[in-house]
Amino acid sequence: MGLEKAEDETWLAALRAIVGEERLSLNPSVLEQHAKDESFHHPRMPAAVAFAKSTQEVSQILALCNEFGRPVVGFGAGSSLEGHVVPPAGGRALTLDLSQMNEILHVHEGDLDCVVQAGVTRKQLNEHLRGTGLFFPIDPGADATLGGMAATRASGTNAVRYGTMRENIINLTAVMADGRVIKTGQRARKSSAGYDLTRLLVGSEGTLGIITQLTVRLHGIPECLVAAVAPFETLEGAVNTVIDVLQCGLAVGRIELLDELQIQAVNQYSKSDHEVSPTLFLEFQGSQAQLAEQSEMFQELAEAHGMKNIKFGRLEEERNELWKARHSVWYANRTLRPGTQGWATDVCVPISHLAECILETKQDIACSGLIAPIVGHVGDGNFHLSIMINPDDREELQQAHDLNERLLARALRFEGTCTGEHGIGEGKIEALKRELGPAVDVMKTIKLALDPNNILNPGKVFGPL
Amino acid sequence: MGLEKAEDETWLAALRAIVGEERLSLNPSVLEQHAKDESFHHPRMPAAVAFAKSTQEVSQILALCNEFGRPVVGFGAGSSLEGHVVPPAGGRALTLDLSQMNEILHVHEGDLDCVVQAGVTRKQLNEHLRGTGLFFPIDPGADATLGGMAATRASGTNAVRYGTMRENIINLTAVMADGRVIKTGQRARKSSAGYDLTRLLVGSEGTLGIITQLTVRLHGIPECLVAAVAPFETLEGAVNTVIDVLQCGLAVGRIELLDELQIQAVNQYSKSDHEVSPTLFLEFQGSQAQLAEQSEMFQELAEAHGMKNIKFGRLEEERNELWKARHSVWYANRTLRPGTQGWATDVCVPISHLAECILETKQDIACSGLIAPIVGHVGDGNFHLSIMINPDDREELQQAHDLNERLLARALRFEGTCTGEHGIGEGKIEALKRELGPAVDVMKTIKLALDPNNILNPGKVFGPL
Repeated sequence: MGLEKAEDETWLAALRAIVGEERLSLNPSVLEQHAKDESFHHPRMPAAVAFAKSTQEVSQILALCNEFGRPVVGFGAGSSLEGHVVPPAGGRALTLDLSQMNEILHVHEGDLDCVVQAGVTRKQLNEHLRGTGLFFPIDPGADATLGGMAATRASGTNAVRYGTMRENIINLTAVMADGRVIKTGQRARKSSAGYDLTRLLVGSEGTLGIITQLTVRLHGIPECLVAAVAPFETLEGAVNTVIDVLQCGLAVGRIELLDELQIQAVNQYSKSDHEVSPTLFLEFQGSQAQLAEQSEMFQELAEAHGMKNIKFGRLEEERNELWKARHSVWYANRTLRPGTQGWATDVCVPISHLAECILETKQDIACSGLIAPIVGHVGDGNFHLSIMINPDDREELQQAHDLNERLLARALRFEGTCTGEHGIGEGKIEALKRELGPAVDVMKTIKLALDPNNILNPGKVFGPL
Repeated sequence: MGLEKAEDETWLAALRAIVGEERLSLNPSVLEQHAKDESFHHPRMPAAVAFAKSTQEVSQILALCNEFGRPVVGFGAGSSLEGHVVPPAGGRALTLDLSQMNEILHVHEGDLDCVVQAGVTRKQLNEHLRGTGLFFPIDPGADATLGGMAATRASGTNAVRYGTMRENIINLTAVMADGRVIKTGQRARKSSAGYDLTRLLVGSEGTLGIITQLTVRLHGIPECLVAAVAPFETLEGAVNTVIDVLQCGLAVGRIELLDELQIQAVNQYSKSDHEVSPTLFLEFQGSQAQLAEQSEMFQELAEAHGMKNIKFGRLEEERNELWKARHSVWYANRTLRPGTQGWATDVCVPISHLAECILETKQDIACSGLIAPIVGHVGDGNFHLSIMINPDDREELQQAHDLNERLLARALRFEGTCTGEHGIGEGKIEALKRELGPAVDVMKTIKLALDPNNILNPGKVFGPL
């Protein structure tokens, strides 16, 4: 037995001593499940997968891996989109799966917050909250874990009203690279007590610490909800309506743009018959009186920008169907070109530049010959192309890459960001440098100070340090 | 001339070369103005005060001071409340006054944001925005600079509706200890691009970098505003009303509690005749229809908790007078005991514990024999005592200190924080350690990594490193 192999055995034995035989897996199919996320990024296997049950175990595991210089990759639902959970090359990593840390510890109805373990998923939480009149609003589409959503600073359709994970976390418990456990804050709704470690860990993609527990904000379920579908003559008209809506302070809950190709995919997949036009999917929230006022005001604004018609969904069933259709776009797009996979782009620009940025991008897509429907959280200035490619075709991958590069450059030109909600992972490392330059050096300094052996999700965010 | 003196001269000459003769001051009265903030903390003089005009100058100054190992204390309006801007002992510090960096660089009406230099004050900005239909909501009372408000993570009466400085900054330009200039983000409304250096700098109290420029969020001025004053039978009734208001999702703009002693001070100072009872000051916002709905719903909730009556202020003049009275409490309290100064406490607890925490505190005040009216941003769970003391009387200082210590312990017991909005400065260093323990070590690691010579506001937040 070689030296390396012996070290491997010692490490694995120590891991087994922490989590027990049954929660440390070397099973090839388990390793494979943990080799990839939902993106086009190529899979790589970890050496082993440990399923943690407590902060204490995570602490012991990190202390151990730090001593052995072993990379540790946190894993929740595996629904990330930039290769965040793909282990580093070399096969030496431990994937630390937190999905079994899925206890909802306290719901404080009076304080509009609750304390959960990191492996709790957003659907599980909202199911648990049923009957309280409260809900957790952040909704990235996938049924991600709250720990994973925190680590990637996720958002989604509700962000225009409720903010992102950044705004909806009160405190975190996290384990640092050396096994130290910290809690970043108390349970008060605001605080000026020292550096904002909560926000530093939110979006750090498992590179600064492993989040094991969160206190998140809850919100009252609006008295009434009405969904609406509004097709427009032009994409520009749809986007300009959104700008007007925001400027008037009209409190819409969601406001999503789907281009005509996206509508076509939704129709095919969901057997719906939406008019094939650039379309806004909306949700109005509030009391009956507020809803009436809002939808009236919206129609006035939208008609001035070429809205063709508007259909309201007032029943829960109708609303759910509509948002299910919206959330299904990732799968629906495969009907546009069977056998392909989506490459999801994620730029976000100031909304005054949104129409121009989307229109230039549509022209670019047309020139490229690629199939790439557009869907956007337009209230935030955030939109996604799903570039439908065969990931094994090098040429197509390159074309998609080039289209994305041009999109990233365009977003930067419009004072936008390379990622509104997906994060950097391994896909946007160069884009981050182009976007923030010297600030990335400051991030690296923090990374090296807190994780000097670079064991926490190495290679992500920065590439080699 | 001694060695130290010679070094002094070299340093001062180099500073003069950067900012020019007229913007480097050794004038004793200028030094004195920069020796203190608005708190009870004892003043200490800097060696010199430099008035910077640009990020470039700040960069040169920091590079120089880092080389000379000279402490640098950022200074805006001097309205902090925990000795944040009091230079370290020893008289070697440079106070870097940013108040002349007060240009409003761009207002992007379509994007609801604007770019300002750090020395712009909140009143100056809102004056500039007049006529746009937009405003900047964060309002800590004092006419602080936006850079200072960012550095202390300030909030105030509007936080319940609009959040704090944390939620209202899109990006920052900051100069790091070695003179490097970074920009922490683009102008998009959200981003997942790397570590959240914006939020790391917000609340770092000048210990990690000097903020020189900010992009802040603006908000549409509500269609209508109505202020209201509602005295209650009991303090508990007032607080429980607030809890109900939040749970119902009633979108109040402000909701402030003043205890009967505070009302008495306001009446004396502002020549008003509010009923001397625990009282809520509120602001309702929205369309006429929303206002009617809100105020009706509020009255229903409040009457169930012993509201005695409610007076509305609908005219701008009436509203301004009311909020002026609220904002004047800091000065009004001196009428309760002429010749004294206020020691402002600042705990913040989960709102479900707020009534209990305030009631215990009132008993404690009564036993202590001190004069300490209470005012609170109760929608956030944040309340302040103004302990009126003679700061030169050691015994009184000690009594105030002890009362505050018991308050801090009480807040911690209720899962609250030692500071909701004032920050740590030099007054809450031990409280921060008690509150966050190992997380403070992580903060220190970051501080030392980014400012290895400890030149940026040394002694604040952590004490000696």
